[in-house]
Amino acid sequence: MNDSILYLEDFEPGQVIELGSRSVSKEEILAYGREFDPQPFHVDEQAAAQSIYGGLIASGWHTVSLFMRLLVDGLLSRTASMGSPGVDEVRWLKPVRPGDRLSARGIVQEVIRSKSKPDRGLLRITYEMANQHGETVLSIKGLGMFGRRPGA
Amino acid sequence: MNDSILYLEDFEPGQVIELGSRSVSKEEILAYGREFDPQPFHVDEQAAAQSIYGGLIASGWHTVSLFMRLLVDGLLSRTASMGSPGVDEVRWLKPVRPGDRLSARGIVQEVIRSKSKPDRGLLRITYEMANQHGETVLSIKGLGMFGRRPGA
Repeated sequence: MNDSILYLEDFEPGQVIELGSRSVSKEEILAYGREFDPQPFHVDEQAAAQSIYGGLIASGWHTVSLFMRLLVDGLLSRTASMGSPGVDEVRWLKPVRPGDRLSARGIVQEVIRSKSKPDRGLLRITYEMANQHGETVLSIKGLGMFGRRPGA
Repeated sequence: MNDSILYLEDFEPGQVIELGSRSVSKEEILAYGREFDPQPFHVDEQAAAQSIYGGLIASGWHTVSLFMRLLVDGLLSRTASMGSPGVDEVRWLKPVRPGDRLSARGIVQEVIRSKSKPDRGLLRITYEMANQHGETVLSIKGLGMFGRRPGA
């Protein structure tokens, strides 16, 4: 048992969790797009310039993947996280473009102890990620399964 | 104008769209996990074997990324797709494991013409992806923006 690990009991509604920031390069946007989402506005600079987006933008799922890395490094890696059953809403509010710097945070909405499995519970956390201009680019209503403190 | 392109008008509620299939390797699961979701059960075979999942599983966002590639190749690449404002629900119903073969399909729920922008509209499509055992591993309630047929 590691005392520095956060368990379900360590979260409460209203708590704000800063998840840090990172930037995304054109090369990363193209690499993700070519592997997983080869729509013209994600993989072809010329076609992207002619699209309604006016230039290359990150796949929405690449944006979510970048957020996930911030979530793991900024929170989950020091918790008793046990995975997730899903998320309730994903919104891509603004395009993410090459060179953008993205900052994420979460706000705890609800702490739900499992009735059937007393060793764990669910957290509802609303996440947002913003760009360097302070514009929110992504919002996610997340669900996370977390272990309860042993012996609690 | 390409007559083989599908526009908003070409979809109707109840329509089933088969999106094809693909498999996922251990190397792909580890590569995505190391870049975007380095939780032990996605990147460390020994730790994964000791987890509640009993072995290495794909990041849920990797599963979504694999689905996205099937969606682009199986549908979006031959449509007037203009991107998406988000999705309304993502559920990871069963773990995805190394060597799994995944098949996806969509069922059109609703066709919504934009009132403010007459050149486009939204489709609500429910997507599911199943493994080689016929078990649904992923469901997504998707929103997609599509162009209307020019001159229609």
